Amino acid sequence: MKCRRCGAQASIKLTHHRTAFCTTCFNIYFKKQVERAIKHYKMFGHSENILLAASGGKDSMVLWDVLLQLGYNVTAFHIDLGIGRYSVESRQVVEKFGKETSTRVVIYDLKKESGITLPDIKKVSRKPACALCGTVKRYIINRLTQEQGFPVVVTGHNLSDESTFLLMNTIQWNVEYLSRQVPYLPGNPPYFVRRAKPLYRLLDEEVALYAALNGVPFVGDECPLASGATQLAYKKLLTEWDEKVPGIRHQFYFNFLRVRDELFENDKEFSTNMTNDKVSSHVEAENLRQCDRCGGPTSLEKICSFCLLLDRAKKGKRHKVAKLP
Amino acid sequence: MKCRRCGAQASIKLTHHRTAFCTTCFNIYFKKQVERAIKHYKMFGHSENILLAASGGKDSMVLWDVLLQLGYNVTAFHIDLGIGRYSVESRQVVEKFGKETSTRVVIYDLKKESGITLPDIKKVSRKPACALCGTVKRYIINRLTQEQGFPVVVTGHNLSDESTFLLMNTIQWNVEYLSRQVPYLPGNPPYFVRRAKPLYRLLDEEVALYAALNGVPFVGDECPLASGATQLAYKKLLTEWDEKVPGIRHQFYFNFLRVRDELFENDKEFSTNMTNDKVSSHVEAENLRQCDRCGGPTSLEKICSFCLLLDRAKKGKRHKVAKLP
Repeated sequence: MKCRRCGAQASIKLTHHRTAFCTTCFNIYFKKQVERAIKHYKMFGHSENILLAASGGKDSMVLWDVLLQLGYNVTAFHIDLGIGRYSVESRQVVEKFGKETSTRVVIYDLKKESGITLPDIKKVSRKPACALCGTVKRYIINRLTQEQGFPVVVTGHNLSDESTFLLMNTIQWNVEYLSRQVPYLPGNPPYFVRRAKPLYRLLDEEVALYAALNGVPFVGDECPLASGATQLAYKKLLTEWDEKVPGIRHQFYFNFLRVRDELFENDKEFSTNMTNDKVSSHVEAENLRQCDRCGGPTSLEKICSFCLLLDRAKKGKRHKVAKLP
Repeated sequence: MKCRRCGAQASIKLTHHRTAFCTTCFNIYFKKQVERAIKHYKMFGHSENILLAASGGKDSMVLWDVLLQLGYNVTAFHIDLGIGRYSVESRQVVEKFGKETSTRVVIYDLKKESGITLPDIKKVSRKPACALCGTVKRYIINRLTQEQGFPVVVTGHNLSDESTFLLMNTIQWNVEYLSRQVPYLPGNPPYFVRRAKPLYRLLDEEVALYAALNGVPFVGDECPLASGATQLAYKKLLTEWDEKVPGIRHQFYFNFLRVRDELFENDKEFSTNMTNDKVSSHVEAENLRQCDRCGGPTSLEKICSFCLLLDRAKKGKRHKVAKLP
């Protein structure tokens, strides 16, 4: 098989695109997909300070590499969640890559800042670890962007992730989640900055391949707290499915994006209203108030859900986290 | 395990409902699901003449049996499509069950009435056989209901079928099809009568079990023209999936029904506007005209798609069927 771009011997076959590339042209293709994503949604420009949420996994590390190569102005932000060896290695990978690429790296050490770790939080809640981690990360990222004035946060979510979430939300026909299932959220200043997912056109396999071909370092292990997570099962299902029907993840996600506005016409304002407490509900800006504890925006009555989690984890008491209204 | 209803030894386990029944109570459960479907949508009453589309497969035969047991007034309608031995056996099963149950049976012999068979039609079209069969059946059923004054047509589509179609339409995010993905269509008199799917709460496995337990005769073979059909692949996928996540088909379909009105609020009128030519597009009643050939309602310019298919099949020429506008 020949490379679609240059006609040389192809070494990489992309069944979902029914095409093949040599390694050089695969890299060009990969970066073009990222550029196309950024331009399509006007995610950010070259003059902006972009905050990259760098977990140390393959997606955020590859995104970091590509954004630098495309000439963007990146600051990497890593949250050390205190999940044993996994967190130690993740932090090391991020710090090392920061030095190698002369990128500014900001570290938030959860244990140092708040006295607790994500496993401490998990102990006092019945919620899935991934949901708790989401609450913690959203909170900390929101605070950092406000304190340090970053206009946009980018995350490494790729097409495999997005189609997985889409499938999960579609099975439940969770209209609120579906309405926000987009690669770019325009933000809700002054509460929340823009959020972008420049890898949304690329699959897990492609990101892993890019990392391998370009020597991008990353922590390959799955987070130990995520083991058994529903989303991993759904992702596996979609990947197997794509082997039978190549391109099914693309079809599913891009067809959705095509009709999304039509389906959720009345719900467009959803996208700009995310609080620290929940991404699942529509919250008008006028319904936001300040958390009594941290001063951050919240839709809850007294203290925000991050501060609630911290409180419980510090007391070490396992009881059900109050249901969000 | 004990029967949920009577506490006796259970012999039938329904994993998707996390329950079990003895055979007697399974039959009660099964019929209750059909009654619940009929009542929920007010599909039809005991005084109405119901036209049952009886292919001879397990679903239509079981539906026939249950509707008689529930005291409904059923006429069975069978279309002999001329698909070799498969059609011969299907017709025999329907005619025999009609005699056994003293049900009036109406047979439409496609070869005798029009000179051609479904395999003749398939030869001159690139469309999937199942799509062509749908066009033919819709046309003939519509004509019969108009000529003989049946107010409602019932078909044996079950939950496995409906969730399969839903998945196919969701992957494509085909909003028009999705908007009509319901167990009951209220009709568009005088053009089209009501259509109902009273088995929409029951899975393939349950219908097959009911047939086996009650000795309902049916043709077990898949239609030979359907082999390799996309919908069979999707159905298999969903069935395998349900083994991993019991109840996923129920969740998916019933969650969809719950939010359907909300999603397609502006498209409610879709459901009442189906022509012989297409179920895929919104066709206002005022856009319908009479087919020059058969006089039936059509949205096409001169002759309806059924007459077009017949014309081509008679000429025996294979060329692409004109794209519907």
